[in-house]
Amino acid sequence: MYDIIIIGAGPAGLTAAIYCGRSKLRTKIIEKAQPGGQVNLTEKVENFPGVFMADSKKISEVMIKQAKELESVEIDEFKDVKSVNCKDGIIEIKGSSDISGKDFSHQCKALILACGAQPKKLGLKGESEFTGKGVSYCAICDAPFFKDKDIVVIGGGDAALEEALYLAKFAKSIKLIHRRDQLRASGILQDRIKNNPKMELVLSSIPLEISGKNFVEKISVKNVKTGKESEINCSGVFIFVGYAPNTKFLEGFLTLDSDNYIITDEEMATEKQGIFACGDCRKRPFRQIVTACGEGAVAAHSAEKYLTNNNR
Amino acid sequence: MYDIIIIGAGPAGLTAAIYCGRSKLRTKIIEKAQPGGQVNLTEKVENFPGVFMADSKKISEVMIKQAKELESVEIDEFKDVKSVNCKDGIIEIKGSSDISGKDFSHQCKALILACGAQPKKLGLKGESEFTGKGVSYCAICDAPFFKDKDIVVIGGGDAALEEALYLAKFAKSIKLIHRRDQLRASGILQDRIKNNPKMELVLSSIPLEISGKNFVEKISVKNVKTGKESEINCSGVFIFVGYAPNTKFLEGFLTLDSDNYIITDEEMATEKQGIFACGDCRKRPFRQIVTACGEGAVAAHSAEKYLTNNNR
Repeated sequence: MYDIIIIGAGPAGLTAAIYCGRSKLRTKIIEKAQPGGQVNLTEKVENFPGVFMADSKKISEVMIKQAKELESVEIDEFKDVKSVNCKDGIIEIKGSSDISGKDFSHQCKALILACGAQPKKLGLKGESEFTGKGVSYCAICDAPFFKDKDIVVIGGGDAALEEALYLAKFAKSIKLIHRRDQLRASGILQDRIKNNPKMELVLSSIPLEISGKNFVEKISVKNVKTGKESEINCSGVFIFVGYAPNTKFLEGFLTLDSDNYIITDEEMATEKQGIFACGDCRKRPFRQIVTACGEGAVAAHSAEKYLTNNNR
Repeated sequence: MYDIIIIGAGPAGLTAAIYCGRSKLRTKIIEKAQPGGQVNLTEKVENFPGVFMADSKKISEVMIKQAKELESVEIDEFKDVKSVNCKDGIIEIKGSSDISGKDFSHQCKALILACGAQPKKLGLKGESEFTGKGVSYCAICDAPFFKDKDIVVIGGGDAALEEALYLAKFAKSIKLIHRRDQLRASGILQDRIKNNPKMELVLSSIPLEISGKNFVEKISVKNVKTGKESEINCSGVFIFVGYAPNTKFLEGFLTLDSDNYIITDEEMATEKQGIFACGDCRKRPFRQIVTACGEGAVAAHSAEKYLTNNNR
């Protein structure tokens, strides 16, 4: 029996673990892949306060080390949670290991959901067919495969522009397709995009279909103002159009919002006693590493208070 | 005319500045002392995710550097804000410089209040008389003056125990006075206190009076269970019983809660359009560096959205 189980080892879950561990609570983190979360997918983090121009990997590494060095904290990797149940104040987590293939079942007194979110698919014709064959959702994973190639990036937010700038180090040219007539991203990023000679904006346009023989060869787009359709030759299509929370295993157990995010109060408490949520899986105003960390700390504090107040 | 003025350069204000600066908003921070906030008053920070075993000064230094290197951000030090007013969407900040003694007046389109909190006084007989003469609210500032002395610490929360452990490096003995029969602090800190041979707990006790000739010589205490009064000989009394927000200049302008904290929604918006609050001056569940930083990021994001949505 654990005091606390934390599902997810991104910045929110790791921060929660640091606080739980310092409070000497017997804590297990269950992570479906490797610890670090989406931070592992970004190249550089400039806006995490207290860490100057860090490469993001270092931030993850330090958080993991901070959590692991605490005696009462353990991290299970590559374990997929399939269900959560609660009876008489005991919470049960069931799932299976991606390594051994074996099922597991763990019990705890309080649960912190920090299960994150993952990239949204567009649902384009050809999108899933060419995933891994030119279609990607992660610049830092796949950019080196597109050295001196012409590529297309879809999206107009901060993440899309950051990824496009990273891709520009490798690719020959980048066409950035966005459905609106201006980008949503912050000014500093927009300026960098506009000043980058490899970058071309394709605004007011939506993608229609990705096609090719064995690998991506082109994408067709439609200008939403003129209705005109055209084709862009490219070897890669990078899609950055937002995230969907990893909350499927909670359906029927917790009420989720219309986008499947977990609803909590300001203390990170869900509708169910002893169950808290933080980070990207939670309905929240601003998705950043530092906001995830702040919420992780609050969730741990609230979970500890819950255990103390209920003499658990 | 500034896009954003931020009052306070602690972790919340500095993080807000980093985000405002990266969004190219013309931003001024007004700080009553030096940038860094209460972090400057602590010795070591172990639980800030992403920064391993940092000495807290380094965290402040990096945050200040991150804010200052952004072109559109400026920091004014030693400026005391005395009033905030708002008319036709223009916010006016008035005050005076502690260095030149001159009055100032600045205008902005959006305001972020990150003005922090300061240590609470107990209101004991002798407390203000002996402040600076043995009574202190800051271990790291004054501990070296109490080398090999017997001292008393008042309080039972995390901050009190952290400060007591720091003081133990210098003092001969420490008696920790707390009004309840158990400490409120986290388990890991309680264990460290209990395992420290210099430390003695004086529980269920309240302080009555601090006395001495020119400097503190003793403190009288009362056991709240037995009613018995006694005296403790000591050269120093360190008081760590919580904080009061620096919101006096807002009285009559914003509705504050019963403890004078600023009330906001989850997006850090106050009741007044274009005015946001974050960090220790805000009513919030958990007061930590990382939660202040998270709120600073959200406040900056909300302020930027406000400016964009109102075409400011």
